[in-house]
Amino acid sequence: MSGAQVGLAEALEITSTPDGWQTRVPEGYDVFGIPHGGFLAALGAQAVLHGSGAPDIFSITIHYLKKGAVGPILWSTSEVGGSRRFTSVRAEGRQGDRVVLAVNALVGDRSSITGPTWTATSPWEPSEARLSPVAGTPEANVPGPAIGERLGVRIDEATLGFVKGEQGSEARMRATVEVDAPNQLTALIACDITPPAVWNALGLSGWVPTVELTAHVRGRPAPGPLGIDVVTRNVAEGFLEEDAEVRDVEGRLIVQSRQLARYSEGPFREREPLQST
Amino acid sequence: MSGAQVGLAEALEITSTPDGWQTRVPEGYDVFGIPHGGFLAALGAQAVLHGSGAPDIFSITIHYLKKGAVGPILWSTSEVGGSRRFTSVRAEGRQGDRVVLAVNALVGDRSSITGPTWTATSPWEPSEARLSPVAGTPEANVPGPAIGERLGVRIDEATLGFVKGEQGSEARMRATVEVDAPNQLTALIACDITPPAVWNALGLSGWVPTVELTAHVRGRPAPGPLGIDVVTRNVAEGFLEEDAEVRDVEGRLIVQSRQLARYSEGPFREREPLQST
Repeated sequence: MSGAQVGLAEALEITSTPDGWQTRVPEGYDVFGIPHGGFLAALGAQAVLHGSGAPDIFSITIHYLKKGAVGPILWSTSEVGGSRRFTSVRAEGRQGDRVVLAVNALVGDRSSITGPTWTATSPWEPSEARLSPVAGTPEANVPGPAIGERLGVRIDEATLGFVKGEQGSEARMRATVEVDAPNQLTALIACDITPPAVWNALGLSGWVPTVELTAHVRGRPAPGPLGIDVVTRNVAEGFLEEDAEVRDVEGRLIVQSRQLARYSEGPFREREPLQST
Repeated sequence: MSGAQVGLAEALEITSTPDGWQTRVPEGYDVFGIPHGGFLAALGAQAVLHGSGAPDIFSITIHYLKKGAVGPILWSTSEVGGSRRFTSVRAEGRQGDRVVLAVNALVGDRSSITGPTWTATSPWEPSEARLSPVAGTPEANVPGPAIGERLGVRIDEATLGFVKGEQGSEARMRATVEVDAPNQLTALIACDITPPAVWNALGLSGWVPTVELTAHVRGRPAPGPLGIDVVTRNVAEGFLEEDAEVRDVEGRLIVQSRQLARYSEGPFREREPLQST
């Protein structure tokens, strides 16, 4: 497994070309050959932000249409409509002649929007956990992807039962990421950075490919590590949802996401990407 | 308040015109003058299903861009891309020259997709609750919208504290809807049919306009009433999320939705739609 040679800031760069906005999936920003879903969401966010000129994402939805590859993504963006505060922007990400990603976002400027704070949840407190990189867990037979190393992902060992072959626990995973200056793009990567939480409940039983991910960006993060709390509550009829909350070091909710993923039983098969490493 | 004169099946009808697909928001499918958000989601679902010819929605995202009105909506639809199982379809809903809705969905055929069932939640059991139409609650000073009558909405009285001026409870609302033959469109309406759950926690303190709603359709409902469980966990920086689960009479998850809504403190103001009735 190669490390991520390209730094995060550079990996998120976007350039204007005569054919549209261009981003790139560098080596090391994949998970066993497939571009990382959260990283693709961040690239989609770059496309809609640059296409619109707005500073903030409020909501972003990504349809993962085809398996992408390491290499360039060309984005065409357009504004669909909007109101005083919110503009609906779409972006299609192509690799070659294939549309691999369809992105739709509400963007605008959150600096003038305020309101009260109330929460029914008790945010996870990373300082009370034993944190470990997946790849650094001695029992792990699943290496962590390089992007996890790049973001300094540390997973709460209490939520790493699956790497020891355990199952029957809560379908939950908690982690922290350390980046120099977290922003909405970093937080979007973070919402999809852990292994599937369902593995702690049902065992390491399959590839869980994301079909769709919608993330609400709820605030601008303070400097410091991000805390991530991921949970799956329903597996049914070939699908599951995975919900994530990403909070900044002050405990403020920065990203709340939900993804729809395919889920089918059975051990890894030859054709599954995870097996091919 | 006028009742919904047009039946639900008729209200959901869609017709092909030279300019695109056309639906209609009839009188009585509004909430105090504004077309009902869940009903608009169902109309958007009709547009993407008819535009693509697919039988099933897997995921649908609606951006509520401008306040709509009772009357026709003209839809332009197009396919963005897809894979073997999933097609990404977009639809823009116009009233006059205004784009009021941007819809993006993953559609396909779920009949060949299967998988195991596992859940971490205890579905709400309507038979153990005292159910009441909002409008029929003696203490209620907020009349229920006509669409609630049309769908036979009955709300768990344990989650109706806000109509008595109470607050400080869980931001939760539970209800049932009775329709002759529930389907994915009915279930999409149902996921947004209750008053805002946040009112039970923070009081009847404002209009809570939906900005974006994403719903995952997880199955085809069995005949019988639908049960709805709605919760808000985070109010922050001018927004809240509202999560809904819609289950069929067998307890199967049919729709799981999350919406992003604006939320600001303070009593109703003159300009708020709820005040204008």
